[in-house]
Amino acid sequence: MKSVFHLITDDPDEQQTALTIAKNLTEDDSVEIDDVVVVAQAGGIEPFTADGEGSDEVRSLLEEGISFRACGNTLELKDLEETDLVDGVETVPSGAGELTRLQNEGYAYIRP
Amino acid sequence: MKSVFHLITDDPDEQQTALTIAKNLTEDDSVEIDDVVVVAQAGGIEPFTADGEGSDEVRSLLEEGISFRACGNTLELKDLEETDLVDGVETVPSGAGELTRLQNEGYAYIRP
Amino acid sequence: MKSVFHLITDDPDEQQTALTIAKNLTEDDSVEIDDVVVVAQAGGIEPFTADGEGSDEVRSLLEEGISFRACGNTLELKDLEETDLVDGVETVPSGAGELTRLQNEGYAYIRP
Repeated sequence: MKSVFHLITDDPDEQQTALTIAKNLTEDDSVEIDDVVVVAQAGGIEPFTADGEGSDEVRSLLEEGISFRACGNTLELKDLEETDLVDGVETVPSGAGELTRLQNEGYAYIRP
Repeated sequence: MKSVFHLITDDPDEQQTALTIAKNLTEDDSVEIDDVVVVAQAGGIEPFTADGEGSDEVRSLLEEGISFRACGNTLELKDLEETDLVDGVETVPSGAGELTRLQNEGYAYIRP
Repeated sequence: MKSVFHLITDDPDEQQTALTIAKNLTEDDSVEIDDVVVVAQAGGIEPFTADGEGSDEVRSLLEEGISFRACGNTLELKDLEETDLVDGVETVPSGAGELTRLQNEGYAYIRP
């Protein structure tokens, strides 16, 4: 099974909870998880930025095989370049487009 | 592909973000979008009301082909009539019923 | 059709709204609903605890056939035992695992 997490909250505590829940999913032996993706947009982009609060957790989860995708519209709005993001974070044209695409591919959607 | 946005937040900034994300989805050329629906309930109903904050954005998106559906339970709770809503907004018996129906028809769910 | 509600907010008003929306779904005659599940984790666990604010509403909805499942990671984090929960609430290893499993079984996802 596959899951996509939608990170849009600008609250640092809620962002931390979202990343913890994604990590916990990969450690839940009762469900066979093949892929976990986190899509961030709007205020949720902060942990994806290289110096952002929560970026160390993103780096750690990247090493565990979780994918991170940043909304291109959000980057433009916030004057961010891909080089401002944590190494390994991908960029997609729009967060909603990626969320639609992944759900069409069978990913379960989770919005912490 | 088809997407439904769930508008339930009573925060005007978050409501604006939700409408912007819906608009951005229709402009994302990397994904073929056939239909976009916004379902509002509880505090999220405000931009659907004729004089509500954000109603001009709703009018603009209606012209671009996005559908807007208001939860009938919410209207009843808030003593609102269909005539209090932006022209073109539809009413459904319950927001959760409509969200369930659309996901069963293959709509991806996005909760900004 | 089947629906799963994701209860994660720690705001008592939003929790109450979530439970009301779940109840309203079962009363929406325009959609045939076969099963409704509420999965709680993080701050959303409060109404699932025996003395928690909102627990009476959970008891009432249990009697109407709605299922309630608590995230085991959340219980551990908050030092809660199953005996601290409302009678009839089940425990699952992780909230995200259960949400993934149910969506794979065709449940629509609703995040109030």
